[in-house]
Amino acid sequence: MDLFKKGWFTEVYDMCPGMTLSIQIDKVLHHEVSKYQDILLLETKNYGRVLVLDGIIQCTEFDEFSYQEMISFLPLCCHPNPKKVLIVGGGDGGVAREVVKHPSVELVEQVEIDERVINLCKEYLPSMAVGFTHPKLKLHVADGFAFMKSRLQNYDVIITDSSDPIGPAVPLFQQEYFQLMKNALKPEGIVCSQASNPWSKTKEFVDVHRVCKQMFPSNGFAYTTVPTYPNGIIGFVLGSLNKETNFNEPIRIFTEEELTAMKMKFYNEDVHRAAFSLPNFMRKALKEC
Amino acid sequence: MDLFKKGWFTEVYDMCPGMTLSIQIDKVLHHEVSKYQDILLLETKNYGRVLVLDGIIQCTEFDEFSYQEMISFLPLCCHPNPKKVLIVGGGDGGVAREVVKHPSVELVEQVEIDERVINLCKEYLPSMAVGFTHPKLKLHVADGFAFMKSRLQNYDVIITDSSDPIGPAVPLFQQEYFQLMKNALKPEGIVCSQASNPWSKTKEFVDVHRVCKQMFPSNGFAYTTVPTYPNGIIGFVLGSLNKETNFNEPIRIFTEEELTAMKMKFYNEDVHRAAFSLPNFMRKALKEC
Repeated sequence: MDLFKKGWFTEVYDMCPGMTLSIQIDKVLHHEVSKYQDILLLETKNYGRVLVLDGIIQCTEFDEFSYQEMISFLPLCCHPNPKKVLIVGGGDGGVAREVVKHPSVELVEQVEIDERVINLCKEYLPSMAVGFTHPKLKLHVADGFAFMKSRLQNYDVIITDSSDPIGPAVPLFQQEYFQLMKNALKPEGIVCSQASNPWSKTKEFVDVHRVCKQMFPSNGFAYTTVPTYPNGIIGFVLGSLNKETNFNEPIRIFTEEELTAMKMKFYNEDVHRAAFSLPNFMRKALKEC
Repeated sequence: MDLFKKGWFTEVYDMCPGMTLSIQIDKVLHHEVSKYQDILLLETKNYGRVLVLDGIIQCTEFDEFSYQEMISFLPLCCHPNPKKVLIVGGGDGGVAREVVKHPSVELVEQVEIDERVINLCKEYLPSMAVGFTHPKLKLHVADGFAFMKSRLQNYDVIITDSSDPIGPAVPLFQQEYFQLMKNALKPEGIVCSQASNPWSKTKEFVDVHRVCKQMFPSNGFAYTTVPTYPNGIIGFVLGSLNKETNFNEPIRIFTEEELTAMKMKFYNEDVHRAAFSLPNFMRKALKEC
């Protein structure tokens, strides 16, 4: 707990080596070590409440909507009729909160391994954990790998809301996992996973795209801005079993009125297209995979 | 100099209150107090060399190209024939390096107040200061306000590469300065200034856009990702005297081959359009101005 000296939490993280983010905290709301990880909940001075797992910021109330809306609506809006969705991970509930908003979605299954994260987010992060209370949601506390093996041709969209591709989440960025998702998808299904930090971790960003390209006939590479993530950015990888899918162009377009009614603070059709507009240095890195 | 304890430089900055960025340093290359400001040049472990003015990171060799390319090519590519350009500030030379690349640009005038910044960047940041050596460039060491008063209907594009809208640079974001720029522009001229951090400093972002809207018949509001800037992002404000200017859509489009020849690591036509695609929360804030 010596990180909290002078009231600041400092993230020391290999996702952007030689650079750290520190956030001024009001108090530690909760700290425990679960069966799977170190869980820390903080009240900060300016960024609301923060969930930290194994020393890494997972989400803050200040900017979580950017990540949650984008990882949900980029794939959902590229599917012609997403009825059944699987979320792997996402223990804070924020992705579930977003996915259930899509009017064609009828059932959302979510598989999260750590029940303690779920319960602590229900207690300390109700603005995200509200996702768990929606009647469309069916929550399973289980290992995502084992769970998906029993689900064949089941889902229209699979969203993987995991931690980063260094440390325990590495398998979620590898071929075996993408094969399992492929098997669990209906014929024209779509997957979307977070894909690391394309500024500092260009190799990891490219590696996960290479895996996805090997497995899916259509691919998409996107990013969005999230101030409290490493380098203020996070990448996404998308794959579709339908070779006609053009991820750059959303099929389902919501009007401004619909977006307001859905309480969307970030996503709109222009932001969708913009997310796939990569700078030259990212394009060049991806060409090599 | 106690910020350098344990080999890290920490930026403590009101542009994102309650959050700080720290960078691991190899050595301090130079430190002096000029007539105008505290100037610090650092060699970092992972982000190349860094220029710090009054304790605030101005640019790192790692990510400077994003800012320099965007603040230059967003306005240049929206002007039908930008021949004469003025840069206000930009003492590191990076914006000059970019602007001279545009094939229709014939003359670039630059006015920077602090000669020590120019000379130190020539010595320690030659990859940016190379901009100062180009035959298209005419450099003036002077105050931007006084300089512009003597220039009427002179420029096609004026780019203001200043520090942030808190502290000494505040006047560069206010009405008097925008009026001076307007007077110094040719009839269909365009201005582009950095416009603060739209995530944490939404008020400042909106304020500068309000000033620009009052003065110019066409306006553009954009942002780009720069990891070492506050919240990993920086906004831009653009104004045009031509009421037909549509900033979202570049007039001059460079092919992939041209961009490679111009050594553009970030800017392309898709990134141009994407920069103007604002998330709902920024759109909403701007509607109120």
